[in-house]
Amino acid sequence: MSDSLYLRIAAEVEQGLDSGEYPPGSRLPSVRRLAAEHGVNVLTALAAYRHLERRQRVSARPRAGFFAALPSRAQQASAEVDGLPSAATLVRVDSRMSQLIEWSGLDIGTQLHMAEAHGSMYPSAALARRLQQTLNQRPELISAYLPRGEQARLHRLVCELAAQWQLELEPDAILFTHGITEAISLSLRLLTRPSDTVAVETPVYFGLLQTLEALGLKALEIPCTPDAGLSLEALEFALRHGPAPRCLVTVTNFQNPTGALMPDEAKKRLLRLAYRHGLTIIEDDVFGELYFGEQHPTPLKAWDSRGEVIYCSSFTKSFAPSFRLGWLSGGRHHAALARLSNSSSLVSSALYQGMLADVLANGDYTRFAERLRRRLARQMRQLADAVLAAFPKGTRLRRPQGGLLLWVECPEGLDTGRLLERALAESISFAPGLVFSAEPRFGHCLRLNFGQPWSPALERAIATLGRLAGEQLCQ
Amino acid sequence: MSDSLYLRIAAEVEQGLDSGEYPPGSRLPSVRRLAAEHGVNVLTALAAYRHLERRQRVSARPRAGFFAALPSRAQQASAEVDGLPSAATLVRVDSRMSQLIEWSGLDIGTQLHMAEAHGSMYPSAALARRLQQTLNQRPELISAYLPRGEQARLHRLVCELAAQWQLELEPDAILFTHGITEAISLSLRLLTRPSDTVAVETPVYFGLLQTLEALGLKALEIPCTPDAGLSLEALEFALRHGPAPRCLVTVTNFQNPTGALMPDEAKKRLLRLAYRHGLTIIEDDVFGELYFGEQHPTPLKAWDSRGEVIYCSSFTKSFAPSFRLGWLSGGRHHAALARLSNSSSLVSSALYQGMLADVLANGDYTRFAERLRRRLARQMRQLADAVLAAFPKGTRLRRPQGGLLLWVECPEGLDTGRLLERALAESISFAPGLVFSAEPRFGHCLRLNFGQPWSPALERAIATLGRLAGEQLCQ
Repeated sequence: MSDSLYLRIAAEVEQGLDSGEYPPGSRLPSVRRLAAEHGVNVLTALAAYRHLERRQRVSARPRAGFFAALPSRAQQASAEVDGLPSAATLVRVDSRMSQLIEWSGLDIGTQLHMAEAHGSMYPSAALARRLQQTLNQRPELISAYLPRGEQARLHRLVCELAAQWQLELEPDAILFTHGITEAISLSLRLLTRPSDTVAVETPVYFGLLQTLEALGLKALEIPCTPDAGLSLEALEFALRHGPAPRCLVTVTNFQNPTGALMPDEAKKRLLRLAYRHGLTIIEDDVFGELYFGEQHPTPLKAWDSRGEVIYCSSFTKSFAPSFRLGWLSGGRHHAALARLSNSSSLVSSALYQGMLADVLANGDYTRFAERLRRRLARQMRQLADAVLAAFPKGTRLRRPQGGLLLWVECPEGLDTGRLLERALAESISFAPGLVFSAEPRFGHCLRLNFGQPWSPALERAIATLGRLAGEQLCQ
Repeated sequence: MSDSLYLRIAAEVEQGLDSGEYPPGSRLPSVRRLAAEHGVNVLTALAAYRHLERRQRVSARPRAGFFAALPSRAQQASAEVDGLPSAATLVRVDSRMSQLIEWSGLDIGTQLHMAEAHGSMYPSAALARRLQQTLNQRPELISAYLPRGEQARLHRLVCELAAQWQLELEPDAILFTHGITEAISLSLRLLTRPSDTVAVETPVYFGLLQTLEALGLKALEIPCTPDAGLSLEALEFALRHGPAPRCLVTVTNFQNPTGALMPDEAKKRLLRLAYRHGLTIIEDDVFGELYFGEQHPTPLKAWDSRGEVIYCSSFTKSFAPSFRLGWLSGGRHHAALARLSNSSSLVSSALYQGMLADVLANGDYTRFAERLRRRLARQMRQLADAVLAAFPKGTRLRRPQGGLLLWVECPEGLDTGRLLERALAESISFAPGLVFSAEPRFGHCLRLNFGQPWSPALERAIATLGRLAGEQLCQ
């Protein structure tokens, strides 16, 4: 009787696994709760889980209970989280990004490893309403291509927005892309051939290193600090002495991961340097709209009289991540980029573009972005205060003036790769310094995301991170 | 007085141009109507248009009136349409696709040049409602990444759909892409290096030729006929004698442009041939869901026991073009494609993916696709009948068993490039044979899209095309 009972309970749990009620990687009800729910004793409930464990539908983790098993493609990630993850899996440049994205889907309680704001920071309900309105009013937006008039309207509205940042663009010099990642990838594909060298900042976001790797390109890492941003001295030295890089990719406003903001004067100097050496610049301004000051910092592109800067931006972080609305203005490369884009992924969603035009026109975009900025600025302060309070003496950080990311430099001896292994065991993730360079330069640093709403749980997680860091230093 | 009057009218028209009331390329009110609207005589109204023409805001077309000028990037297209378009602009492979897409936004009354169903063929209102529901129920879909559990659910549902076509896939061997164009572009980028050769069908859709061009690849054109499909004899000859192509791209079901359906036996032979010669196949099944028979034809991939076929498909044509929901299953290349995708455009819209899962689960997708197929089958018959009735004797076509496209072979002497110039002047577009090959093989053929609802205007347009073709042959 008890035999068939545990099987019946197991079957019910399995149904929950199949239906998606318990997504892969999610924590299952505790043995005690399962027992109570079915009115059986704890041993019978445990037998049900053990049965499912043998069938590889659930997995047990010491002191954490039972979890829904992951699909097989994620076995590697699973092995990491189950048997404590290893920073070693992050060493391969071509899989860092994929690996960190995998984590986003896992059952990690406090996720600070990505560069995005939490879903709850965006006005989902308002956007759902607006999306329905837009499609009802203009059912033709279900088609693949945005009607020419709509496109002209959207481009004009984007130009009006950019003009507020002193960036004067022509409506026909705007190209929408599938997120900024595609904008940068297209630019690199246009400007380079495999085995070319591309100058980047160091530290630099792992996504860019993975993109370069995928295109067979070499990264020339130019130092960048939270205080001074990209070192123009180092860049000039590299241009004078090394083999000339084919182009430079730079995040001018709130760099990823350091948060550095390049001052206007430095931007103008960089431009003069680029002109002198015939260097094309891909400017990544994905964080520019998340400014905490008076206004969106002026992009490099604003001073580019020669069309040498390919300006890449996005509405992903400031408006709705799911919409993947990146865009670029390609200067003298614009027409070639437009052609390349047609052969690469054709068009962005007409519906999302149509809706974006509506919210730009009626002021909703401005209101949403304003509120998001205020919340991010507050969360940045809360996170920075908590880190300084919890982390070992000698830890340094500079509060960024915008963006989503806090770069933390711990005392030299600390190994944030090892720290991450301990942190994941406590269900906390962050991006360790080692992923931001091909060289082992930033092993004592880490990047935290302040896009999560502040909460007691988050505060505890930071305290835990600080404690773990302190323990490692004392060993 | 009359001086300032025409300027005031011009200013009002210009305001309409700026506001998007008159999108670029659109027809403006007739001179007579403009005069009546402003209570002036016809000469004053004409003076207003001439003033705007000097300022390049409007353009005059003989016997057609005034049109809103196109933005400068489209000057080339503009020159074509204004002074009657020239098929010569379609000769450059790298701009055919862009050029034809440009036309979609123009003021062409009967558009038969693309491979998509008209927006009204899709259930916009139902989708708008569903989209709002999905986002309200799961506001977390506003985020960039689909939660792991949601992703697993969607992949499972796609596998269930594919299983109905005898295609057995594992949920973790599904990768969503930004339309099928990205799926194919990623596959080519993975398999090839610049200057490699890729085997394709001939005639073949111009988008693929442009993609190959953009990647620096050479196309090896293997004959394909509406009756027999891809010639395996020609392919085998090429594999034995020529420099080996790096891979083959083939549209197995309802080929573009011929509409050919490769029989099951030919698919199995093709696979054996590929295995023998170590040839990887990129199978483009974008039209497979638009079958008119009993069921979705079995893809080549269904018999691929060795993982040599990269299967590419899409929900774009069968569900909602705006959503750009392509996907692939990469066989032994799958993991590498997933990594490359991460560095190229990251992720498809989480919201669209979440909504797709909902409509796959509740049966809406099946109902929508069923209705679309019935309508397309009817429109295909109507179009084919009209063409055979209107076109010169000797015109041949084979009614396709699915898809969106009708391939028409006119008598050898006809030049469909010239025919297109005449047709555009009558506000009718189609895709002329010359764009489907790098060689001048198909100059007497043309491709028509039956994705437009049948209407008296469409019937008249086909009659006009037939008349123009007859006139050209008699010259």
